[in-house]
Amino acid sequence: MLKLYYSPGACALASHVALEEAGATYELHKIDLRQGQQKTPEYLAINPAGVTPALATDQGVITQNVAILTYVAQTHPQAGLVDFDDSFAFARMQAFNAWMASSLHPAIGKALFSRPPLEGAARDEAIEQALAKYDLAEQHLFVGPWALGENHSATDGYLIVFTRWARQAGLLDAGRFPRLNAHLDKVQARPAVARVLEVEGLTAV
Amino acid sequence: MLKLYYSPGACALASHVALEEAGATYELHKIDLRQGQQKTPEYLAINPAGVTPALATDQGVITQNVAILTYVAQTHPQAGLVDFDDSFAFARMQAFNAWMASSLHPAIGKALFSRPPLEGAARDEAIEQALAKYDLAEQHLFVGPWALGENHSATDGYLIVFTRWARQAGLLDAGRFPRLNAHLDKVQARPAVARVLEVEGLTAV
Repeated sequence: MLKLYYSPGACALASHVALEEAGATYELHKIDLRQGQQKTPEYLAINPAGVTPALATDQGVITQNVAILTYVAQTHPQAGLVDFDDSFAFARMQAFNAWMASSLHPAIGKALFSRPPLEGAARDEAIEQALAKYDLAEQHLFVGPWALGENHSATDGYLIVFTRWARQAGLLDAGRFPRLNAHLDKVQARPAVARVLEVEGLTAV
Repeated sequence: MLKLYYSPGACALASHVALEEAGATYELHKIDLRQGQQKTPEYLAINPAGVTPALATDQGVITQNVAILTYVAQTHPQAGLVDFDDSFAFARMQAFNAWMASSLHPAIGKALFSRPPLEGAARDEAIEQALAKYDLAEQHLFVGPWALGENHSATDGYLIVFTRWARQAGLLDAGRFPRLNAHLDKVQARPAVARVLEVEGLTAV
């Protein structure tokens, strides 16, 4: 049985959505990041990096959304979450996902979730740098109507982690990010995503 | 014809090594990060994110080492750089690669390459945080004798980007990181890696 370790609304949402979209059989284990549960000895034994998500499988633990998304897709091929057969299309997906993990996530995370919180000019600068990443997604990486083009994929559930955070912070301006806004609405309207949000105690934003 | 945009010794080394290990036919185009060539209009037309690596293919441009490594492996299967058939093994590779991109790289990059350079206590703290990432690789992620276990893979050429930087900065202590040190020596001794280092104007460290 698969078991996903997640924190509500945090980036593990991407893996949670993939599992639900795939029709996977899985359990959930909540790790409250605000209470520091990711640094307990029990959780560090599961993921020594002390972050979520982590997906426990019969063979061992898989970390990193980039890896969990392809694992869920590969083990549930009927869901069509990843196109493994077209090496270029697969590479484009990997590039989008890895860019979110290594560039978009740290930029918006710094702006919104630094501890202690950024203030004044430092916060303004961090927000400006983060929004430049959203510009890159809006103008270049996002294909439309889904993130990678005509077909829904696991990348859609990953992208909304960050567009949800931005919209909740009042940063996802409709004029500046029309395609990302439309995409967020479109993804949140999916039944699997609605189920995931409800289970995590969240609502569409 | 594949064309790799790289900067000598920077993280594109991972993609360069993968191409050479795969026996791929490719051209190189040097982008000097110190001279800001990654921000020229010509290069931004290739990779709007303004970073290296980028791999131009007949179908379009692929960015991100995580994506380029699997693309090169998938299009050159005889090289055995990625095990696509075992979904768990593939996920473990993806997790290691994505962790390097999103966690190890930013941590050591901040410590060594911030502009303006960090000094004093700020530098010490950044180095300490970076070395905690190397501890995680040494003690948990690295399997041995190769990064992922008994077989050489594309992850080996990625890992040495960061162990080279650390050793050059005097941070890859032999007592603290015995396995990463042995691995760096083992990978730099590979003929394909020696060719790549020579072409980039580098030497084994």
